[in-house]
Amino acid sequence: MTPAALIEELQTLVEPGKVLTDADALATYGKDWTKHFAPAPSAIVFPKSVEQVQAIVRWANRHGVALVPSGGRTGLSAAAVAANGEVVVAFDYMNQILAFNEFDRTVVCQPGVITQQLQDFAEDQGLYYPVDFASAGSSQIGGNIATNAGGIKVIRYGMTRNWVAGLKVVTGTGELLELNKDLIKNATGYDLRQLFIGAEGTLGFVVEATMRLDRTPQNLTAMVLGTPDFDSIMPVLHAFQGKLDLTAFEFFSDRCLDKILARGDVPAPFETRAPFYALLEFEATTEQVADAALATFEHCVEQGWVLDGVMSQSEQQLQNLWKLREYISETIAHWTPYKNDISVTVSKVPAFLADIDNLVNSNYPDFEVLWYGHIGDGNLHLNILKPDALSKDEFFAKCATVNKWVFEVVQKYNGSISAEHGVGMTKRDYLGYSRSEAEIGYMKAIKAVFDPNGIMNPGKIFPL
Amino acid sequence: MTPAALIEELQTLVEPGKVLTDADALATYGKDWTKHFAPAPSAIVFPKSVEQVQAIVRWANRHGVALVPSGGRTGLSAAAVAANGEVVVAFDYMNQILAFNEFDRTVVCQPGVITQQLQDFAEDQGLYYPVDFASAGSSQIGGNIATNAGGIKVIRYGMTRNWVAGLKVVTGTGELLELNKDLIKNATGYDLRQLFIGAEGTLGFVVEATMRLDRTPQNLTAMVLGTPDFDSIMPVLHAFQGKLDLTAFEFFSDRCLDKILARGDVPAPFETRAPFYALLEFEATTEQVADAALATFEHCVEQGWVLDGVMSQSEQQLQNLWKLREYISETIAHWTPYKNDISVTVSKVPAFLADIDNLVNSNYPDFEVLWYGHIGDGNLHLNILKPDALSKDEFFAKCATVNKWVFEVVQKYNGSISAEHGVGMTKRDYLGYSRSEAEIGYMKAIKAVFDPNGIMNPGKIFPL
Repeated sequence: MTPAALIEELQTLVEPGKVLTDADALATYGKDWTKHFAPAPSAIVFPKSVEQVQAIVRWANRHGVALVPSGGRTGLSAAAVAANGEVVVAFDYMNQILAFNEFDRTVVCQPGVITQQLQDFAEDQGLYYPVDFASAGSSQIGGNIATNAGGIKVIRYGMTRNWVAGLKVVTGTGELLELNKDLIKNATGYDLRQLFIGAEGTLGFVVEATMRLDRTPQNLTAMVLGTPDFDSIMPVLHAFQGKLDLTAFEFFSDRCLDKILARGDVPAPFETRAPFYALLEFEATTEQVADAALATFEHCVEQGWVLDGVMSQSEQQLQNLWKLREYISETIAHWTPYKNDISVTVSKVPAFLADIDNLVNSNYPDFEVLWYGHIGDGNLHLNILKPDALSKDEFFAKCATVNKWVFEVVQKYNGSISAEHGVGMTKRDYLGYSRSEAEIGYMKAIKAVFDPNGIMNPGKIFPL
Repeated sequence: MTPAALIEELQTLVEPGKVLTDADALATYGKDWTKHFAPAPSAIVFPKSVEQVQAIVRWANRHGVALVPSGGRTGLSAAAVAANGEVVVAFDYMNQILAFNEFDRTVVCQPGVITQQLQDFAEDQGLYYPVDFASAGSSQIGGNIATNAGGIKVIRYGMTRNWVAGLKVVTGTGELLELNKDLIKNATGYDLRQLFIGAEGTLGFVVEATMRLDRTPQNLTAMVLGTPDFDSIMPVLHAFQGKLDLTAFEFFSDRCLDKILARGDVPAPFETRAPFYALLEFEATTEQVADAALATFEHCVEQGWVLDGVMSQSEQQLQNLWKLREYISETIAHWTPYKNDISVTVSKVPAFLADIDNLVNSNYPDFEVLWYGHIGDGNLHLNILKPDALSKDEFFAKCATVNKWVFEVVQKYNGSISAEHGVGMTKRDYLGYSRSEAEIGYMKAIKAVFDPNGIMNPGKIFPL
């Protein structure tokens, strides 16, 4: 069949106008937030029902066409990039909240529901959807599930995985599976739901998800604490975890703070300078809780772990303290940073961070290294700013060397080469630093079970 | 090779004396808490290391010998029964806690560590292992993971799955996999750890597990509330969940209470008689929390949802209230009950329970039906007591009919035929009531990936 005839057949499977092949659409829907790959899909198709998704997958099987699922395309690993003539299946028109159950505290979502839309819906019901991150305004639930999205509240609420009560997926053969049926307890064999969460669309596409909600947190209160060195952050975390149920424990370096303060629109947390800062958050449900937080703060100061600190006294102050952490990514984007999203177990973070710092500083003394991240769950975001003297190409060539060092250190510390951004295409060649040959072999065999013709997002997670 | 030669070869793989073939050992290690199957293993082997487990699995592959893993053998689905000449792999000598990390709050356990041993160890560290159930004194961590054990605190803490940070497994080919490396965030492809949790040893054997601990709950306080009918329990749950972080929400019927009070060693919660009782628990961390609980109780009384109630004022009273619920299973064992462990979503529980009640009462008016369970997570334990007039055989013949009805109603309500006891052999023929043909097909294909020769606990989950 000619390419044109293929597209004509595809058009019969969906509503009129729901297959796009114009250059704008191909460029827009063919890429995510990574910029390393040139988008080159052959068409974009917008299903409006589960049946249409099944028809598209069966069509792709018949003709050997590769499919790439597309949500909010906010991914940072190129898992939603179509660079090889694939057909992009975009879920923008399957974006409805279908049902809510107040007793089960569950919401049935189509895959194209925006994260923020679910958060707002939960709020309207007096409840809370706790998975939150910078791209919540455009990322979609289907994509969140495909990447098992994490973010800033994982220490308390866990990853997206924890909030998926049930899942409808279309497998690589076009079969519809209804997984777990929204049950809390279900001991009837393998929990296939778990396989699809974080599979980056390589086993099948999420076509419906029942998400759990939680009660709304009360009187969220943040502290920002300055520490004399990185190592001090660990006993601070330990001390606060022993006294409070933390909803977040983030950190950033003084270099990050400098960039934020230079913007001019975020107030400094306090006068004292410190090389590292911790941002922690908790529910100050009662005065006792706030008192316990202050007592722990004082204990940390006495121990020499904390130089200075501040606790939010209002919603406005809470927001301002969070800006110190949340604005970092967009603020440093100006310096074309090399970025890496890695994790180790919490206890190994100080030694791990020191190792990487030493490697980079001794080899590239002109590189400015910025650290921030979700220290409470061992997730570090490493950022290196491009020196003005280097061209982009020179800089990224040197960063390829850094990449290898970083992954070697990750492997040494038994860590993960991708904490929460996924593998996609950017990290597929490095998967062996985190997963054994045997594991990768089993993963490929599982892919072959659900996607025997290899049409579901091929080239993602594993090389083509 | 002759059976005797096979056993001789097996003996060379482990320490002297660690293969048993005497009748006592075969009878003891060949069965779990289910009594329907006659144990008939050919030998019991006790490995003391991961390498020995690998050697045993490779030996089984070479000779086509079926293996059955054996933990505390407290299961209720015959998943650990060896009824067909299998070799039982018992983990009793791999029972050490290998490491503890206070910053990560993790404990590295061999599979034979007893649940209670882990709970006590956690307590010694000032921490808490929250998965708890009646058989905690003899069940083993490996078995808990293989069945994804639940219990009485699931509403707050979730199943065993939530507490497994990392897992070492030996697959059906004898390969050792180190899954997830104890990381909180790890987005590097399929989370194979999740597949082995709840797989009942059919994909591989757990040989080491890193379990997470939590902070110790503070001032646990229980309430027992009498309700005028079952339906009233739901708004009571809803009201309390809106105000408190519940650590448990259990229920039992008046018939259960009668049996408990007849023992003579547990005090009545209060004078008022009620057809149903809810037991809820929360952390009374401050007076405000206790006040909120009492205000909610009063609200429930005003609404007519609650007839009477009591709140524990001491550790002793807390224990006594829990006995009303926890003693049920052993107390009614005297009446040779038909038991079933099923679940639906919480909101469907009243209609589901009424349907089953009607079916049983109208067809077998002489049957005494006792309900209790974990209502907060939709998990009901249905118990029918044997009438004195019926022989065991007559009773269980009629119960086979009841089984079918129950599973049909479960299917109608999109529920689970096994909430937390697993499939094993007792429910394998009914799996289709909860999982589709396509799902079962995919599960079998996954089993073939990890256990190509079908030697790992064959006949469990799926028929032989």
